[in-house]
Amino acid sequence: MKEVLNYLERHQTRFWEELSEFVAIPSVSAQSEHREDMKRASDWLVRHCRQLGLTTEKHETPGNPVVVATTRQDGNAARPHYLVYGHYDVQPAEPFELWDADKQPFQPTVVGDSLYGRGTSDNKGQHFVHLKAIEAYLKTETPLPCDVTFLLEGEEEVGSEHLGDFLARERESLAAEGVVISDNGMPSLRHPALTYGLRGVAACEVKVHGPNRDLHSGIYGGAIDNPAMVLCQLLGSLRGPDGKVTVKGFYDDVRELTDYERQELARFPETDASLRRQLGVRQLFGELEYNSVEQRVARPTLEINGLTSGYQGEGSKTIIPAHASAKVTCRLVPDQKPRQVLQAVKRHLSGRCPRSAKIEFEAGHAGEAYLNSPESPSAEAALRALKRAFGHQPILMREGGSIPIVNDFKRVLNIDTLLLGLGLPDDNVHSPNEKVSLTALRKGMVMSAWLWQELGSL
Amino acid sequence: MKEVLNYLERHQTRFWEELSEFVAIPSVSAQSEHREDMKRASDWLVRHCRQLGLTTEKHETPGNPVVVATTRQDGNAARPHYLVYGHYDVQPAEPFELWDADKQPFQPTVVGDSLYGRGTSDNKGQHFVHLKAIEAYLKTETPLPCDVTFLLEGEEEVGSEHLGDFLARERESLAAEGVVISDNGMPSLRHPALTYGLRGVAACEVKVHGPNRDLHSGIYGGAIDNPAMVLCQLLGSLRGPDGKVTVKGFYDDVRELTDYERQELARFPETDASLRRQLGVRQLFGELEYNSVEQRVARPTLEINGLTSGYQGEGSKTIIPAHASAKVTCRLVPDQKPRQVLQAVKRHLSGRCPRSAKIEFEAGHAGEAYLNSPESPSAEAALRALKRAFGHQPILMREGGSIPIVNDFKRVLNIDTLLLGLGLPDDNVHSPNEKVSLTALRKGMVMSAWLWQELGSL
Repeated sequence: MKEVLNYLERHQTRFWEELSEFVAIPSVSAQSEHREDMKRASDWLVRHCRQLGLTTEKHETPGNPVVVATTRQDGNAARPHYLVYGHYDVQPAEPFELWDADKQPFQPTVVGDSLYGRGTSDNKGQHFVHLKAIEAYLKTETPLPCDVTFLLEGEEEVGSEHLGDFLARERESLAAEGVVISDNGMPSLRHPALTYGLRGVAACEVKVHGPNRDLHSGIYGGAIDNPAMVLCQLLGSLRGPDGKVTVKGFYDDVRELTDYERQELARFPETDASLRRQLGVRQLFGELEYNSVEQRVARPTLEINGLTSGYQGEGSKTIIPAHASAKVTCRLVPDQKPRQVLQAVKRHLSGRCPRSAKIEFEAGHAGEAYLNSPESPSAEAALRALKRAFGHQPILMREGGSIPIVNDFKRVLNIDTLLLGLGLPDDNVHSPNEKVSLTALRKGMVMSAWLWQELGSL
Repeated sequence: MKEVLNYLERHQTRFWEELSEFVAIPSVSAQSEHREDMKRASDWLVRHCRQLGLTTEKHETPGNPVVVATTRQDGNAARPHYLVYGHYDVQPAEPFELWDADKQPFQPTVVGDSLYGRGTSDNKGQHFVHLKAIEAYLKTETPLPCDVTFLLEGEEEVGSEHLGDFLARERESLAAEGVVISDNGMPSLRHPALTYGLRGVAACEVKVHGPNRDLHSGIYGGAIDNPAMVLCQLLGSLRGPDGKVTVKGFYDDVRELTDYERQELARFPETDASLRRQLGVRQLFGELEYNSVEQRVARPTLEINGLTSGYQGEGSKTIIPAHASAKVTCRLVPDQKPRQVLQAVKRHLSGRCPRSAKIEFEAGHAGEAYLNSPESPSAEAALRALKRAFGHQPILMREGGSIPIVNDFKRVLNIDTLLLGLGLPDDNVHSPNEKVSLTALRKGMVMSAWLWQELGSL
């Protein structure tokens, strides 16, 4: 391992040059004018992985290609096998004018400890870390305790539409012990983190129909129900003043946090005061018996994402609108069933809609929560690797968002994911002035190098 | 009177030709390309009034001119004096494609008993009726029991912005016993009507502020309040299941309907079933102790006119929106004070807004309700004139909408208005295929002829 670690230390400057070259390719998957850049980015990866000594193939899909690069040699399947997932596509860089003049999205620049550019953190910089760790093993001819296959797709920012099919098609060759993904965050450089849980999601649209057209509120108001009022009363009934969702059965399948989990989450460094300041609110709001970290990562929610009804322009228009609608999403935790939750919400609303209006409920996309054991051998292996690299006791984290590909790996390949995010809260992911911490990447490389040792010796 | 009535009967054909000529001028006040047409319409009126023998003047305003035409002779102020208000401007005719092929907005056509064209009912046809009645007096040299001054403006459809100032400037010359306006409706030809009350209005905008930007509902949901939910709960608390507005003090100043009024309103021919069918609702909604006519004309309401928050496009966006807002208007009845009502609504909402959100309340336009006595001598005079002309017992009506000019006449000239609408419910006012009933106009002329007798002998 000494040689591996020395190698990583010695080649830092070249690494940043390589990463900058990669980031300079504007591989924006959402914008069709960048189609050629998607090809360039995948070709760059293919070339790069081959230079490292990986057996590399580019797989075409109906969308952007998936690059698969592996340390596996034909006939050698004796070692444990892990996948590393990453994505070479990036978010659009707009609005360009909000990037600082000296920080251009596709002309990466180092300022202090940060490399600025679109995709530096999400996700080019993060999967680059694992490529470099493997490079160090291969170039120093240090025996790898396990085989590693990189799976680098180009459609994550547009929904990974073709990944599930690809996994199913390559089920055999991708059979593995687990997946490693660095595509999320850690609270700070002193708080390296293993994320073992994610929330799920269930979306729906609620529409209340009133009269067959917008009505003059003077002529009809008083004898005709107002669908915007009905919608407000229906939606308002979904949440109590105690922060609880009032839908019958909503919490039935919720798995409670264990004492160990609560204890680990308590180490999360963000305070309520900093959260309030950062978001500009006078007071937080949520279930009283949980703290704000628990509320955000391990408790289910129901949010109104949008409201539409009647007149929304300047001034006023005295109408009873013909209809009113809302976008609603629930964040779910283990072991809630998305479709059951949507059914329960539908029942709650339909049962309360007065006969003077008509409700229409449309279920939308849905995905289950994900939860890996925080005490599994592979989780403990990852924690040891984090500790060695960062020099601080890592945090066991759950995250409030959803990463649908993690469910794809579980569903199609039946394997769990180690989420080892290297992003920092101020990385401006999906925003102007995206950057990555070079220290996080450097320590990430060391973590990755140790990880294969730890996972290989399980 | 016989000669007057004979005159009206004999000249019907010419009257429809004249009215058609007037309607053919596309005097759309809202559209600047019709500026020249506004001048043409006012010039047509000036010419026409002079032919009748009225002393006529065109008064320029910062907007469209006001035509003033009077039977008054210098030095003769002995007779009672009444104003007749009307407006020569019309609503835009768009969408043109929704007019039937044989009915063009500015090429008036008679089909059966109806004259089709923009402005036939609102309002050219209706004030034309009063011009013809006066013409009959003047041309048959029948002594007029009172003096009549026509006040015909060109900005009603765009808010009568300059009328208040004009009335103030001409306060002396416009001093009168009362105003007669035919710019509204009656339920049917068998239900001629005197409208003696109108509702007022008070508008406001309510905005709830949450976090300082739209937040990722996965990362923050659970610990941060959702302003769309807060708005729904606040607005939802404004109305009870009994149809009552729950704002403290809302009903304090409401003048109750008298038995006589309820008895008169009960004669209104529209049924709940026909209202439901017409508006496409399964059930009406309102205060239980009032019937639907009473609810619509004599009870105050609070309506949400529009809702806006967060994401309103296709599919879903998992955000906690930064803010949510609503347009709200109240319809008011005597003796509610619009500003006090808005204050009470503001207090209700502010007092209930949690500290985890922030409410912003903006008061908008407001106007008091109008109520004339249904048993005053002039109201009774009008009822007698209606009865004579239509041959049916007239209805005493209150209307749910607001006609702000009526308040202008009261405020500036301190006179009451007799609202003698000749429009029918199917006149398609403000809509394609606007028409007027020729029978309604013919009987309206007779009513007007009798009205001056009745008012003159008070």
